[in-house]
Amino acid sequence: MPDHFEDMWRTIAPIGRAERSGGYFRQPFGSAERELDAWFVEQAVARGLRLETDGFGNRIAWWDGGSGPGVVTGSHLDSVLDGGAYDGPLGVVSALAALEVLRERGFRPARPIGVSVFVEEEGSRFGLACLGSRLATGATTWERASGLRDRDGVRLDEALASAGHESENPQPWLGSERIACFVELHVEQGRDLVDRGDAIGVVSRIWPHGRYRFEISGEPNHAGTTRMEDRRDPMLTYAMTALAANKQARVAGQRATFGRVDTQPNSTNSVPSSVTAWMDARAETDEALAELVATIARQAEERAERDGTTLAVTAESVSGAVDFDAELARRIASDHETGDWPVLPTQAGHDAGILSAAAIPSAMLFVRNPTGVSHSPDEHAEMPDCLAGVDALAETLARLAS
Amino acid sequence: MPDHFEDMWRTIAPIGRAERSGGYFRQPFGSAERELDAWFVEQAVARGLRLETDGFGNRIAWWDGGSGPGVVTGSHLDSVLDGGAYDGPLGVVSALAALEVLRERGFRPARPIGVSVFVEEEGSRFGLACLGSRLATGATTWERASGLRDRDGVRLDEALASAGHESENPQPWLGSERIACFVELHVEQGRDLVDRGDAIGVVSRIWPHGRYRFEISGEPNHAGTTRMEDRRDPMLTYAMTALAANKQARVAGQRATFGRVDTQPNSTNSVPSSVTAWMDARAETDEALAELVATIARQAEERAERDGTTLAVTAESVSGAVDFDAELARRIASDHETGDWPVLPTQAGHDAGILSAAAIPSAMLFVRNPTGVSHSPDEHAEMPDCLAGVDALAETLARLAS
Repeated sequence: MPDHFEDMWRTIAPIGRAERSGGYFRQPFGSAERELDAWFVEQAVARGLRLETDGFGNRIAWWDGGSGPGVVTGSHLDSVLDGGAYDGPLGVVSALAALEVLRERGFRPARPIGVSVFVEEEGSRFGLACLGSRLATGATTWERASGLRDRDGVRLDEALASAGHESENPQPWLGSERIACFVELHVEQGRDLVDRGDAIGVVSRIWPHGRYRFEISGEPNHAGTTRMEDRRDPMLTYAMTALAANKQARVAGQRATFGRVDTQPNSTNSVPSSVTAWMDARAETDEALAELVATIARQAEERAERDGTTLAVTAESVSGAVDFDAELARRIASDHETGDWPVLPTQAGHDAGILSAAAIPSAMLFVRNPTGVSHSPDEHAEMPDCLAGVDALAETLARLAS
Repeated sequence: MPDHFEDMWRTIAPIGRAERSGGYFRQPFGSAERELDAWFVEQAVARGLRLETDGFGNRIAWWDGGSGPGVVTGSHLDSVLDGGAYDGPLGVVSALAALEVLRERGFRPARPIGVSVFVEEEGSRFGLACLGSRLATGATTWERASGLRDRDGVRLDEALASAGHESENPQPWLGSERIACFVELHVEQGRDLVDRGDAIGVVSRIWPHGRYRFEISGEPNHAGTTRMEDRRDPMLTYAMTALAANKQARVAGQRATFGRVDTQPNSTNSVPSSVTAWMDARAETDEALAELVATIARQAEERAERDGTTLAVTAESVSGAVDFDAELARRIASDHETGDWPVLPTQAGHDAGILSAAAIPSAMLFVRNPTGVSHSPDEHAEMPDCLAGVDALAETLARLAS
């Protein structure tokens, strides 16, 4: 008999976990993520599922049955740097477990049911989130993606080749003619469900969000002998920008974060020559996001003038707001023994948002997170809530594939 | 005939130079610095000098003659990351060239004259400036130094072993019984000589200075879903500290610089778990330095409280003010055809300061720097000024070794 949820969870728990922090390093095409991928293939084979894999390594394991386009559920296996155990894998393991629940109940699907894994959802290696689903749906072209480089300068196409995808040139292949609807189960990354006292929720909407690179150039110099008034120090421009971003987002009830900084030459006794920093920004509407970023960039520009530095701001990726299919969400959320499941928005991007934009009716289930902490070793969900998530997903698949 | 100044300068110019910036990467025990070291040995051999090398790789090439403790001149061959061509090598090349000038004039020294190279003057690899001269004079013990690690986690003793110093355990060996006086020629790192219209100056004093590590810990979290008011973001504490340091130093006419930052996990869509940053601070007196650092640390602490982060400040190294031997400076600076050379202070630490603290009468000659820029690819000195430096150093050695 195939592994149940808790067995699977135990099996993958050590893969890519750092001893020091307890956090996960599961970057795409790295050893930990490849080990998880191999584990997924094993699970699919053990369940007699038909495995479909594209040239980028995205996978769907099909339980064939019925006819027409399939109902697909799944998530991703990669993590941010030093991330949590749940973000991604919870959706994949729950999908496999939910399939098993349906089979044990003798459920006969009227449509194929697929369990999907999309590659590089976090964008933690090549800087573009949801890269796998973007390529699979054609939202991003291979021409653009193949030239992306990781922090060590490795190109995406080289990383692919070394992971055994040498001869492939991934073409878009996923659309509504193959997928009738997509449901992604995910750990909640905020505290909405805790506040409501619910274990399970349905997502209505993803806030628009983007990544913006701030490149600030100054004049490298000696930290001791150069008078403060003679400097052109990019660190000052950066520091003010980080504070301004926080303040603007806080005042507006939105989000702006500088979590990644690269200083050159990064030497204690040198005024830096340049500081490059990446801002993650999110807002309730596309207009509010554009205004937030423009305000922060304007303040940074003013400070750069004062510091004698130069500033270039580049939007590396911007994703508009995603409104999930309201009818699908209603169908999933309503008429349960315990009443309706709550419907709520999220600020985090997901592959479900990319599929939704590709005209595939999509939905998300959230599982309660007692602290709201995510992208951190402390990310957590209680086991009873995880098992409630498996049941909720099984119930959802039964509704959609009947 | 051994190489003259310009030949030597041309020979070493390409070693460790980065093509992109034109700056130098000559970290201790790295390939570029080892190549320079081999070049120095060659030069010493070609000049028939007797080479003395300690267990850490510090070298003195002796022109034996006369009796008693020697007159030593020299500098260092390592650079900061992406540094300039002159800081260090100018003093070594000028020393070799000055020796040649004296020999060509038929000068007969009444004392041995030595040309020295001290290792890891910049502290750019192991974080402790003047490490070679500190070990040679006993200012730092081998017990403390051997455990220092570079950015890649390589221990100093491992780096030494891989550079071929495996069996050594460096013991202090340099004191006034071996060195009667030490003179270091160096490119000026400010604009004092430019403002005065002089090519050569004599240094009276080194400001006290130190390196302080600020370790700020917060709570890693998702950059999108975590409300601004729920965060404990160490980046904010750091940003305010960098701005406060700049302001405090500017107001007081002193120096404080954050040039090196390490963010964990350094991921665009994560609120960082920690930010570690290094502050370089310098002031006119020991008291003023202590007060400057205390004020900045206090402001950082207040901000940390506001941000819900924790702060630990560690002084990695603090060097008190160095007053060079006034009588020696007078002897070097006075009674020249063109009048006296100017005597001026500096804010940068040097091996001469370490030797001075070890009771070796020490002095420094500065060569004019047209822009004052240093620790940068743009660091520069005009060739006529460099040659004037060689003559000034030859004249100085003739006075001291007669």
